[in-house]
Amino acid sequence: MALPVLVLTTGEPAGVGPELALAVARDWQQLAATVVAVGDPDLLAERARLLGWLVELDVVDLGTRLPVPTDGRLPVWPVSLAKPSMPGRLDPANAGYVLETLDVAIEACRRGTADAMVTAPLHKGAIIEGGHPGFTGHTEYLRDACGVEGVVMMLATERTSKPLRVALATTHLPLSRVAEAITGAGLTRVIRVLATELNQRFGIASPRILVCGLNPHAGEDGHLGREELEVITPVLDRLRNEGLDLVGPLPADTLFTPRHLDQADAVLAMYHDQGLPVLKYAGFGQAANITLGLGMVRTSVDHGTALDFAGTGLADVGSLRVALQVARQMTARAH
Amino acid sequence: MALPVLVLTTGEPAGVGPELALAVARDWQQLAATVVAVGDPDLLAERARLLGWLVELDVVDLGTRLPVPTDGRLPVWPVSLAKPSMPGRLDPANAGYVLETLDVAIEACRRGTADAMVTAPLHKGAIIEGGHPGFTGHTEYLRDACGVEGVVMMLATERTSKPLRVALATTHLPLSRVAEAITGAGLTRVIRVLATELNQRFGIASPRILVCGLNPHAGEDGHLGREELEVITPVLDRLRNEGLDLVGPLPADTLFTPRHLDQADAVLAMYHDQGLPVLKYAGFGQAANITLGLGMVRTSVDHGTALDFAGTGLADVGSLRVALQVARQMTARAH
Repeated sequence: MALPVLVLTTGEPAGVGPELALAVARDWQQLAATVVAVGDPDLLAERARLLGWLVELDVVDLGTRLPVPTDGRLPVWPVSLAKPSMPGRLDPANAGYVLETLDVAIEACRRGTADAMVTAPLHKGAIIEGGHPGFTGHTEYLRDACGVEGVVMMLATERTSKPLRVALATTHLPLSRVAEAITGAGLTRVIRVLATELNQRFGIASPRILVCGLNPHAGEDGHLGREELEVITPVLDRLRNEGLDLVGPLPADTLFTPRHLDQADAVLAMYHDQGLPVLKYAGFGQAANITLGLGMVRTSVDHGTALDFAGTGLADVGSLRVALQVARQMTARAH
Repeated sequence: MALPVLVLTTGEPAGVGPELALAVARDWQQLAATVVAVGDPDLLAERARLLGWLVELDVVDLGTRLPVPTDGRLPVWPVSLAKPSMPGRLDPANAGYVLETLDVAIEACRRGTADAMVTAPLHKGAIIEGGHPGFTGHTEYLRDACGVEGVVMMLATERTSKPLRVALATTHLPLSRVAEAITGAGLTRVIRVLATELNQRFGIASPRILVCGLNPHAGEDGHLGREELEVITPVLDRLRNEGLDLVGPLPADTLFTPRHLDQADAVLAMYHDQGLPVLKYAGFGQAANITLGLGMVRTSVDHGTALDFAGTGLADVGSLRVALQVARQMTARAH
């Protein structure tokens, strides 16, 4: 059986992405996958020299067969930097390079040359300044490239007993705009995508999803907000009639306890800071960010470019390992 | 040295409060405090019989000296039920009784007969229906009784290394009203109360407080909301000039990680579901709710009346134990 192929974009060249790719290549740790990085081979070689790491690069063409994974070897699909990059120094001239690494990975997944893509962090500001004012983030770029209407952001990490997975109904919005962004149509779409992918990508026959209320105490019967009564509960009732296993709306501060979590496959938080602080507290830097609804598998690290750490070799590779492992698990269903 | 006196209100008679008081009395666990319950002695005796627990009640007058704490003995300051109470069956006729137990405890703290009060849960709906339509909660009742302008709600639990304490800038508001409720004046008051009480009640010379942003990623330099730039940061700068040790505003999803928490004495979250899900995840039912700014010490369990569990003896006494321990620690400064 052929190993699944994970394509890893190395992200912002001045950030920790290149060295995280090198770090992973030093020890594949029974990943049971072939990983190929996308980036500038000269950049990767230079970063390895700087760190004194012995990692041999196999520069391969997209069409060519990938070598068997070996500790200390990193296959690379090459994309050339516009200008040489120094650790920690952003250069908007390389914005096009970063986007091109994404395009290569998307195309590889689309053609079936790769089974999943895993992304190291990019720097949004550098892309915007580099002549792409409409750029709003990795996830949105992938959504548009894949031609889908909406995607769902989910983070996952390991707990003692079972994985903790937290998906978001809304993502990067000012808090003052969250309540109005929770609509029946939007919530329905998010829950359908979440349930479908838990089934198809994670192999969970009938996923149980815990749904947070929007308001404290899930609105306390309308005393602390009416969105639970007017929007969330009707959506959950309708989807339960379609056979989905949904629990809630639950107060967020009682939902994240073993009594509930041990019985569930995922949590749907209504907004960013309702769900992610717990996930990252539980995950200790060992969390992966997963984009659902793209029609392909994409995972990502849960941190940024960490410019201060670039070139030091000190950046924690934990999140990238989890991102690769989760991508590997998600592709298993197709093999 | 006399032991500090903690007065424990037994809360809603149909809930788990009475049996939690009895459970604690069976094993004082080196609490190094004298605890006196406030409630109906007949109710407590009957609940003990129902559960088959051997707890002897010492009914004492408020002015009388309290007995030395002994496992299996519970001193009680008596207040009479209006009507007999059955486990799990709310009766608004007893609303006045519940409030009277609070009044007794407040008065005892005010006179110095008790050093701190600890409250078992009451049922807000039953109080309102029982002829007190303006009742909005324990905390607000205490605030008014103590004649202070505003109080600060803080929850605390133990982590592996040090306590995790999370205070809230706003509490029980619909999410749609949170952003407008974060004002410079309000935030200044909350931070001052928090810093003062961490110093005076917890004995921390120069408490370091981590402050969350309001928006995801703490607003990302204004891209995801402007409250950090316009309200929060100016308040923090001003208070830093007064000598307070404040860190932030930080993104909530990176704040709750060991890197930050290990260096800090408390976290200030901007709203309920930004801070409490992590606290309760970390606390596993072993958290205490603390009201700061009353001019007296008050702690509470972090759960409700649990009517379903009343009379079963199965309710977890963990949170009440923590509430008593924290109250004990807070009174230590005055001894």
